[in-house]
Amino acid sequence: MNDFDLSTYKEDKPFFIKRIIWMVINRTIFRCIPGVKLSFVRNGMLKLFGAKFKGSALIYPSVTIFAPWNLEVGQHSCVGPRVELYSKDKIIIGRNTIISQGSYICTASHDISKLILPLVTKPITIESGAWVAADAFIGPGVTIGEGAIVGARSAVFKDVKPWTVVGGNPAQLIKRRVLEDLNQPK
Amino acid sequence: MNDFDLSTYKEDKPFFIKRIIWMVINRTIFRCIPGVKLSFVRNGMLKLFGAKFKGSALIYPSVTIFAPWNLEVGQHSCVGPRVELYSKDKIIIGRNTIISQGSYICTASHDISKLILPLVTKPITIESGAWVAADAFIGPGVTIGEGAIVGARSAVFKDVKPWTVVGGNPAQLIKRRVLEDLNQPK
Amino acid sequence: MNDFDLSTYKEDKPFFIKRIIWMVINRTIFRCIPGVKLSFVRNGMLKLFGAKFKGSALIYPSVTIFAPWNLEVGQHSCVGPRVELYSKDKIIIGRNTIISQGSYICTASHDISKLILPLVTKPITIESGAWVAADAFIGPGVTIGEGAIVGARSAVFKDVKPWTVVGGNPAQLIKRRVLEDLNQPK
Repeated sequence: MNDFDLSTYKEDKPFFIKRIIWMVINRTIFRCIPGVKLSFVRNGMLKLFGAKFKGSALIYPSVTIFAPWNLEVGQHSCVGPRVELYSKDKIIIGRNTIISQGSYICTASHDISKLILPLVTKPITIESGAWVAADAFIGPGVTIGEGAIVGARSAVFKDVKPWTVVGGNPAQLIKRRVLEDLNQPK
Repeated sequence: MNDFDLSTYKEDKPFFIKRIIWMVINRTIFRCIPGVKLSFVRNGMLKLFGAKFKGSALIYPSVTIFAPWNLEVGQHSCVGPRVELYSKDKIIIGRNTIISQGSYICTASHDISKLILPLVTKPITIESGAWVAADAFIGPGVTIGEGAIVGARSAVFKDVKPWTVVGGNPAQLIKRRVLEDLNQPK
Repeated sequence: MNDFDLSTYKEDKPFFIKRIIWMVINRTIFRCIPGVKLSFVRNGMLKLFGAKFKGSALIYPSVTIFAPWNLEVGQHSCVGPRVELYSKDKIIIGRNTIISQGSYICTASHDISKLILPLVTKPITIESGAWVAADAFIGPGVTIGEGAIVGARSAVFKDVKPWTVVGGNPAQLIKRRVLEDLNQPK
């Protein structure tokens, strides 16, 4: 351990200036535009910084986004209060997808096979019709399948299959999601 | 999935105006009244909005309450810093009960048997002498029994029996709570 | 339960005035000094209140420290955004140690064998080269061994052995940490 010096750690800071400008906007003007009806204004700001929207979507004012240019959000989706989209890598959110309050979508980790712990990033995909419940954590590289349910406070480090329900830390399969009101999707 | 449209989702917003007014007060004046000695002022504000207090209790200034009219707090109880009482349904707190910093008491969920995920709320009861430790999560419909201990960071989705200790996510029984200083309660 | 009265609970408040002054500084001036290059200014403030630094270290502006006089930080270590160092007892951080965003280092608990729940504090040690990942919780009395990895969102209540990887709530051993780039430490 004696020869090791973490202060030599260097990380690529792509788009550094752009990111600082966005950070200031996200923490000031973005936070001040309230409600559902003005969500198009917040989405407009995100688009100016490179986010891709496929139709209307509701991003709450208290959401923190690291890099909008790594964000893609489908139609009718909702990202709730105090969610953090830590988009060091791509975050792709499908249609009719809900991410509830306080959840943390984390695309970054470190390579623990090296003492200096180099940054590792992997994209996260949350597919259409999925619901990530309150205070959940989604780790780098994870895909949440179509229509899947991630229980409140879950910590998810592996892919979640479509139309299943997971929960706990680490998240485990609880059951298949059975729909009452239509033919069960496959 | 193609015919499904989450933007058609409608939620009852009972007491909408009252709730917005309370939200502004909670995030401004309420936060600015410091300490233990002035807790009666904060409690007075909560009472004005329908909270029921049975004697003195200590609600920290940084507590967030969704709907005070759904809150009932017993004598000598304490709700600590940054706790969120998400009282879409009733939250009933007994006497001599402690809810520690950062805990989230969540009365709302969604019905996952339907694609549109309708809101479901269930009351939460935390009985007398219980301690919910730091950063815990209590889900809808849960009753924490008398004198029970909910460990730090636990996520509780099932009832906790009186005089037991639970921990983990999902929370599991750890042991019975044994008191040293008096006849063991039943 | 009827004879029990939590309002009689008294807690020692050592250095009460000093702590209030520090709290105000921590939440105002400290938060306003940005970035890596000015970290020596933040560290200077912490030193004025008794923190011990052994060389340079990076404490983010959004870190909350309960009592700097209980904090000791080794060279080249980093305490990330929104970490809470709840130092009612000693917190000792080694060299080249990383504590990632949102983690909660909690030295205090309560004695659950008594109804009145007296405060219990125990020191926490996070040894050199360890990495505590995002949103983790470290409980009172825990030692995180040299080079150990505590996974994101873990809740750690027992000691973690050197050069191991733990995760989950409660945290469990996942594997030994194997380094690629040099002789494996013992």
